[in-house]
Amino acid sequence: MIKFPVLEVFGPTIQGEGMVVGRKTMFVRTAGCDYGCSWCDSAFTWDGSTKEDIRMMTADEIMEGLQAKGGSRFDHVTISGGNPALLQNLGELINMLHDQGVEVALETQGSRWQDWFIDIDDLTISPKPPSSGMKTNWQVLDTIVNRLADSGRQSHTSLKVVVFDEEDLHYASVVHHRYPQVDFYLQVGNDDLAEADPAILAAKLLEKYQWLIDQVMQSDMLNHVRVLPQVHALVWGNKRGV
Amino acid sequence: MIKFPVLEVFGPTIQGEGMVVGRKTMFVRTAGCDYGCSWCDSAFTWDGSTKEDIRMMTADEIMEGLQAKGGSRFDHVTISGGNPALLQNLGELINMLHDQGVEVALETQGSRWQDWFIDIDDLTISPKPPSSGMKTNWQVLDTIVNRLADSGRQSHTSLKVVVFDEEDLHYASVVHHRYPQVDFYLQVGNDDLAEADPAILAAKLLEKYQWLIDQVMQSDMLNHVRVLPQVHALVWGNKRGV
Ligand code: SF4
Ligand code: SF4
Repeated sequence: MIKFPVLEVFGPTIQGEGMVVGRKTMFVRTAGCDYGCSWCDSAFTWDGSTKEDIRMMTADEIMEGLQAKGGSRFDHVTISGGNPALLQNLGELINMLHDQGVEVALETQGSRWQDWFIDIDDLTISPKPPSSGMKTNWQVLDTIVNRLADSGRQSHTSLKVVVFDEEDLHYASVVHHRYPQVDFYLQVGNDDLAEADPAILAAKLLEKYQWLIDQVMQSDMLNHVRVLPQVHALVWGNKRGV
Repeated sequence: MIKFPVLEVFGPTIQGEGMVVGRKTMFVRTAGCDYGCSWCDSAFTWDGSTKEDIRMMTADEIMEGLQAKGGSRFDHVTISGGNPALLQNLGELINMLHDQGVEVALETQGSRWQDWFIDIDDLTISPKPPSSGMKTNWQVLDTIVNRLADSGRQSHTSLKVVVFDEEDLHYASVVHHRYPQVDFYLQVGNDDLAEADPAILAAKLLEKYQWLIDQVMQSDMLNHVRVLPQVHALVWGNKRGV
């Protein structure tokens, strides 16, 4: 059986972002990313700092890990990274979860297509804005969005752009207008990854969230959109695995 | 033309609750409610305190009011109350909004059916838990949920229960298991309607939200659910019209 590089299996907790924000879910975090965003809040998945924690796990073992932690208290699993779209054979895990009646969410930056995208129940494509230091490959992104649409997966797909500044906001506008038919989410970024006091972090994040809301409300280029806070950071601060 | 009792027209702002949380939207708040919840945060819509502010408006006039405030910066309107389901002819406004390419969300406690429910794009039925002091009419609620399902409106419908205490949480469980096929949202209630400092209110609300998350995560009766904070109160405190 194929093995996948897994860094964390935890939950149940809530999904803190995007199209199913608030959803009760388990998390499986895979290691490895083809990007290196300046403000990555999961840099430990790719910067080598937790290399010794990576476990090579089969779909069966992941399933066991989920059941050990979640028991009968979940029916939804979020696969996050890093970029889980690097894993060509992930369909095996997705099918196994579906066989157990479990729904599957996944987030990827949209740098690579995988055929199993069309099996994901809640697929978030999150292209990275200029502040990340990354460059969007529009051709690949076009392919991904078009293939999902052609496969009738529009209601299972969303786009999400994290916004740190005005340039990012402009980028968000460009993405939204390139794919107007796809549900679009804006989210304020957390660049306070060192802040240890959750209350101080929450106050800062709410202030930034209010700024983003104000910007979007003033714009007539961003109407059919949703603007969300980072719920996990609001509630638990910069703590991992919650 | 029919006239509707309107208390506020404002926006654009974000939807702070439920199935389209974060959605850029305008608000139309109608006056009048057949309930009197102990913790109602919109008591001014029915307790007589803002009686002189109620304007009797035609759908045309409401449309003008929306355009005056929102210009070209919106494509979504939320009709809230009070209980807008008291207004039998609201279909006239809903049709006019749809003719302009505007989507319509509406929230009601589920005490009364209206034929125009099947035209609402995002319909939230929010039956009130014991702490409200109100009694649910299950027969009416059954009728509403069944008619929406029979009309193929399931993907446009959600249930939402506001939770203040453990008894409310049990009630939420009962609602969810009575209508397992309907998307289900839990929300923490705000019983600090007098708190004037948004930062203090935000801290309290986040603490309660964390309590609700913990409860739901421990339960195997609440799996296919979403748990959300009250985003408006987090960002703007107890301020009205934002
Ligand atoms: S794509 Fe995501 S995981 Fe990869 S570096 Fe960027 S933020 Fe981090
Ligand atoms: S149903 Fe809603 S508007 Fe009516 S009293 Fe209860 S909380 Fe207030």
